[in-house]
Amino acid sequence: MTTVLDGDMQAEPQAFDRVLSSMCTKPHPVAREAAERFLATNPGDPGSYPTISALEDEAIAVLGEIAGLEESAGYVASGGTEANIQAVRIARDRAETSQPNVVMPESGHFSFRKAADVLGVELRIVPTDDDHRADVEAVRAAVDDETAMVVGVAGTTEYGRVDPIPELGEVASTVDALLHVDAAWGGFVLPFTRYEWNFSHAPVDTMAIDPHKMGQAAVPAGGLLVRSSALLDELAVDTPYLESTSQATLTGTRSGAGVASAVAAMDELWPTGYRRQYERAQHNADWLAEALEKRGYEVVEPTLPLVAADLPRSTFEALRGRGWRISRTATDETRIVCMPHVTRKMLAGFVADLDRLEVRASVPVVADD
Amino acid sequence: MTTVLDGDMQAEPQAFDRVLSSMCTKPHPVAREAAERFLATNPGDPGSYPTISALEDEAIAVLGEIAGLEESAGYVASGGTEANIQAVRIARDRAETSQPNVVMPESGHFSFRKAADVLGVELRIVPTDDDHRADVEAVRAAVDDETAMVVGVAGTTEYGRVDPIPELGEVASTVDALLHVDAAWGGFVLPFTRYEWNFSHAPVDTMAIDPHKMGQAAVPAGGLLVRSSALLDELAVDTPYLESTSQATLTGTRSGAGVASAVAAMDELWPTGYRRQYERAQHNADWLAEALEKRGYEVVEPTLPLVAADLPRSTFEALRGRGWRISRTATDETRIVCMPHVTRKMLAGFVADLDRLEVRASVPVVADD
Repeated sequence: MTTVLDGDMQAEPQAFDRVLSSMCTKPHPVAREAAERFLATNPGDPGSYPTISALEDEAIAVLGEIAGLEESAGYVASGGTEANIQAVRIARDRAETSQPNVVMPESGHFSFRKAADVLGVELRIVPTDDDHRADVEAVRAAVDDETAMVVGVAGTTEYGRVDPIPELGEVASTVDALLHVDAAWGGFVLPFTRYEWNFSHAPVDTMAIDPHKMGQAAVPAGGLLVRSSALLDELAVDTPYLESTSQATLTGTRSGAGVASAVAAMDELWPTGYRRQYERAQHNADWLAEALEKRGYEVVEPTLPLVAADLPRSTFEALRGRGWRISRTATDETRIVCMPHVTRKMLAGFVADLDRLEVRASVPVVADD
Repeated sequence: MTTVLDGDMQAEPQAFDRVLSSMCTKPHPVAREAAERFLATNPGDPGSYPTISALEDEAIAVLGEIAGLEESAGYVASGGTEANIQAVRIARDRAETSQPNVVMPESGHFSFRKAADVLGVELRIVPTDDDHRADVEAVRAAVDDETAMVVGVAGTTEYGRVDPIPELGEVASTVDALLHVDAAWGGFVLPFTRYEWNFSHAPVDTMAIDPHKMGQAAVPAGGLLVRSSALLDELAVDTPYLESTSQATLTGTRSGAGVASAVAAMDELWPTGYRRQYERAQHNADWLAEALEKRGYEVVEPTLPLVAADLPRSTFEALRGRGWRISRTATDETRIVCMPHVTRKMLAGFVADLDRLEVRASVPVVADD
């Protein structure tokens, strides 16, 4: 059967040379190799596929090491969305109220809204402060006895901010709520910063941390970590069958390619490769921020490798028209994510296109390298 | 960093030559090639990855053709579990009661139990008849005004049975409930049988149908089909952002490899390749059933390429000890799934091992080819 889209199958799947909008990246070569090798395996069926099941244990062990969790428990999820949904589900099922609520800053990812809808949980969204970080006192005012979980974000989607995780943990403990950290994107760069974000810094109960973002694994490879396996037990679903495993995952069949690629990437890159990547990415973000500031744009100073600046909507659309994949925040800034595939040369090309599109008369254009 | 499991990374990921327990299989070569080509793409982010997004539309169009749905709508899910969960979620959110229930036969997949737990929906499980099919009158007795959905299975997990789908649709309509068909496994073989199972045969509203099972695509590639896109709208989650898409999927980032492999496999195999595969698999199942009957075992006569027989537990364990991956039903039969990778030679080897392990004195052992 020939399809109308035969052309699409032959087309370049996606050149990364203009992708500045994605929190995913090209898988590292060793990750790609492992993904291809383990493509036909299913860690959701350990009885049939024992090798990839053992590899998943290894993935969780290393993720725990990265996240400051000595006896790590968890699983490789389809992505950060599943990890966040499952964290809310753990909190909901553990809470003793029939009307549990989850409190999170407005910078929290869309997946928490999805989780609230799916799980029938009230989501209380609290404004962030002037630096786009969770406002601890506002969170404190929002929690109550029915709060099942407080969310802190370690590497926010729009601004790459890190919330004050230990302080949020203290607020959570006042109402016996779980503390969940969404480090889906930030988890693979934060070990090289001074932020306090993980299980060793704060009373974190659950965490989302995705190898297929900054970890350079292949999609799908998200991660859910829990401080104790008793928390995972909340996800077990009873069956009457003696031999059925009560799966703690949200999906059934799962991708062995993702799991194997996560192990391979972390084996290769943790910690030195990831450190180098963070430093390069942060330098790129800083360079871009400076280049945009010189051109008169208002830039949200990057704290992690993510830059937001107030390019006009017309400029944004024109840049997209030139093939740049960029995105916009809720308050209309343009957002660029400096993933591992983003090079200085790419960013220079982006800035050069920006210069062709828009001249700010009052600011001399300086030719940067 | 060297890992304890370096050996595992180098080990054979999984030889399929003894896997008789899985509803997944080796991806077809064109599917593998497409998966590798599109490994670094994410159909969950159409703005950054437009090519794979277009391919997903193609996948849904072909799935609709296979499932008798002219104007098909849906998406490529992580697997049948997600498709089933989302179907229950559509039904829950559409229902006008605050206490919706879902009625399904006991042969329904574990994912419906997971869905009920996640979504806070009552699951009413109805016994099957003597042929392991949904008992329509029992289903009729179980539905009431608060029933949001009736489940029919087209290719059950344990016995490969096809429920009386049109009759179940009639029962569902009496209480204005949706009819969901779980054809995750059966959907790619049933077009070549006389069963009435799909959107053209019955008032089916939603369906699970997985390319990564009999469709020979790579994991993860499940499918959710809906009769009208209005049903998918039930899954949309509001956000305050002008530009955010309210995703109808359960995950966020998704695997382009799975989507591309589904398109490639269906392009190559629908309909002729899938027809040949069904005929071969059914002949294999029939051969195995006969071989086991000759040896004195009680065999559940296969209606699709899946065989269940009452091997003693000790025999089952001994066969597993010889490397055979086989599974057991809830009532302790041994179950063998004749997937595309299962050859006559494999089955002959299985039967030969069975003969070595157990001799039934009263039945002469006949050497089959």
